[in-house]
Amino acid sequence: MSPPKPIDHGAASKEVRAVFDDIKATRKVDDVNNFWKYLANDPATLRRTWESVKEVMAPGALDPLTKEMIYLAVSVSNGCGYCIASHTAAARKVGMSEAMFGEVMAVVGMANETNRLANGYRVPIDAAFEK
Amino acid sequence: MSPPKPIDHGAASKEVRAVFDDIKATRKVDDVNNFWKYLANDPATLRRTWESVKEVMAPGALDPLTKEMIYLAVSVSNGCGYCIASHTAAARKVGMSEAMFGEVMAVVGMANETNRLANGYRVPIDAAFEK
Amino acid sequence: MSPPKPIDHGAASKEVRAVFDDIKATRKVDDVNNFWKYLANDPATLRRTWESVKEVMAPGALDPLTKEMIYLAVSVSNGCGYCIASHTAAARKVGMSEAMFGEVMAVVGMANETNRLANGYRVPIDAAFEK
Amino acid sequence: MSPPKPIDHGAASKEVRAVFDDIKATRKVDDVNNFWKYLANDPATLRRTWESVKEVMAPGALDPLTKEMIYLAVSVSNGCGYCIASHTAAARKVGMSEAMFGEVMAVVGMANETNRLANGYRVPIDAAFEK
Amino acid sequence: MSPPKPIDHGAASKEVRAVFDDIKATRKVDDVNNFWKYLANDPATLRRTWESVKEVMAPGALDPLTKEMIYLAVSVSNGCGYCIASHTAAARKVGMSEAMFGEVMAVVGMANETNRLANGYRVPIDAAFEK
Amino acid sequence: MSPPKPIDHGAASKEVRAVFDDIKATRKVDDVNNFWKYLANDPATLRRTWESVKEVMAPGALDPLTKEMIYLAVSVSNGCGYCIASHTAAARKVGMSEAMFGEVMAVVGMANETNRLANGYRVPIDAAFEK
Repeated sequence: MSPPKPIDHGAASKEVRAVFDDIKATRKVDDVNNFWKYLANDPATLRRTWESVKEVMAPGALDPLTKEMIYLAVSVSNGCGYCIASHTAAARKVGMSEAMFGEVMAVVGMANETNRLANGYRVPIDAAFEK
Repeated sequence: MSPPKPIDHGAASKEVRAVFDDIKATRKVDDVNNFWKYLANDPATLRRTWESVKEVMAPGALDPLTKEMIYLAVSVSNGCGYCIASHTAAARKVGMSEAMFGEVMAVVGMANETNRLANGYRVPIDAAFEK
Repeated sequence: MSPPKPIDHGAASKEVRAVFDDIKATRKVDDVNNFWKYLANDPATLRRTWESVKEVMAPGALDPLTKEMIYLAVSVSNGCGYCIASHTAAARKVGMSEAMFGEVMAVVGMANETNRLANGYRVPIDAAFEK
Repeated sequence: MSPPKPIDHGAASKEVRAVFDDIKATRKVDDVNNFWKYLANDPATLRRTWESVKEVMAPGALDPLTKEMIYLAVSVSNGCGYCIASHTAAARKVGMSEAMFGEVMAVVGMANETNRLANGYRVPIDAAFEK
Repeated sequence: MSPPKPIDHGAASKEVRAVFDDIKATRKVDDVNNFWKYLANDPATLRRTWESVKEVMAPGALDPLTKEMIYLAVSVSNGCGYCIASHTAAARKVGMSEAMFGEVMAVVGMANETNRLANGYRVPIDAAFEK
Repeated sequence: MSPPKPIDHGAASKEVRAVFDDIKATRKVDDVNNFWKYLANDPATLRRTWESVKEVMAPGALDPLTKEMIYLAVSVSNGCGYCIASHTAAARKVGMSEAMFGEVMAVVGMANETNRLANGYRVPIDAAFEK
């Protein structure tokens, strides 16, 4: 009946250690976050999630700061406490200032408000958006 | 029992017309979107929402494109059909390319996945995020 | 692979008809809404849901109008299209005016905005709320 | 990397103090809640949010108790811990009895259940709701 | 202004005790969980919720393990901390292994990701799903 | 400003065709669903999502029917119209009967109700669930 427990580097299988090592090398950090230590209970999910995050969050048409702020915005909107804490830290690490944080929060709040106003008033999609 | 109906410029009160005119002038458009025509059923909400959106979405520490992509990301995460259509259009208008759209969607998808993995594994917040 | 289909009075089993008849008698209507015709595919869920709704929505410490507006507020917040339409109609039937509808929407919008601001700023609960 | 911190009256700018003073005068309280102390990190969001809340929650077609119960209902549905605590307190302050609280919870629970049944059975909107 | 308090067996009314006794007999446990002790503040909701849970979670076309894993999946998706803890325990009690838990989490994560991709790309329903 | 468009096999790049062909071979179908045709606008997301879905939904500690019912349950809870239609079809294809569908819906409804009751009554986690 016990809740999930973290798996530390010392107790990890070879497969899990390889993922941990890649996270540390990619992010230039000494240890992995709790998120990865808990996912390590399911090595297949650990590996797949890390490979996906690494690919999605790499610089592309959007820079890492923009991506981290979007990740944070979704996490705040969903109310995931762990994710809010970890992605606030991650966004700050790649350059989010206090002022930027405030504006992300303001946009997330506004979007959540107008999303419900659009729902409640049952607003039909403008023809111009469909062309 | 009838559902909400849009209020067009011709049928609008002086108070509503003033808001419509400000939206058109600020956005340099010929007509306001359905969202505003439906909100016009409650002039106080129309005015307050427009004033808030105008303030929040103005350029600040974040540029308008970044703000629109965050707005879109939250709307997609919440599943608001009208908002997805209108903010995809708005983001494209201020410069979101096809590649940027794809990356916004990829980040939104990934955040929604890892938000639930963090919930399900009950991951405690790392001490490093709290300092 | 076909989607769920409604079950009309004529095609209904005796068990389903008894629920339909109780809905019609309780609500003083000639026919039941689509919601009940679809639930009729699972007679146990139809009966249990109707018994629960009948009990919860009966006048008590709160009057039926207040209860219907709360039901509508939650449905708008969740983005359930069917429920928004049906509970807007139900609330109007028991007395929700246009002005009341507008204020319900305004409160729902505001609550969704401040819920996210509280999440994002990780606001700790005031000691005064816990006493 | 540090999480948001509250800003107390003593450390607040003139602009923030003016908002704090208006909240205290409007609500007849000696100090503002944590929510406002955290929002004070972004004075524009603090001011805009307070002005909006003050306008939306003022008596109108709906009385303050009904509005607070709707606010609570949405916060419970969204799972915002801070908001549940603060709006339970706020609703009690304006007259929500234990019995009323119980009925709000019952309606919120029922709405969340039937919202999903309507989704899952893909129930089409009744023609009668659209007239 | 105080938050809800649990009601223990000793302090419970005859009506509440009858529900507690039925829960203990049905589940073969010595005491009821906190969830039921808090719901006991509203005896009608306590009774109705227990009767519904007992009926819905009984073996039927689906076995209890499958039902508990679905309950857990929804609770994780909604981010309800209490429900995640209690339904992880409940699912383990009826046979969910560590490997099964990992696969439930993986499916929940994937569903949350693809739900948003379908929203964002506004994918129309295939004709084949409607036949 | 146009909304996303599907990419059919004939217009697809070599990279996209390879994914389409793998989906068709794995699922033994003549064409891919709209979901994949829309994701094909972003070949990296198409490939990554398909590889993840293929891995997560393969038989493991849970059989494909259980996995599809969990996927459906989450999609219903989130209110994703496309996902509800496609995963109802997918679950039926691997053996979900009408009775099973009804029980999945009943559990999803009940979980959504009790998740909110637990939120609203602020129920603390039982010590027994933490051991």
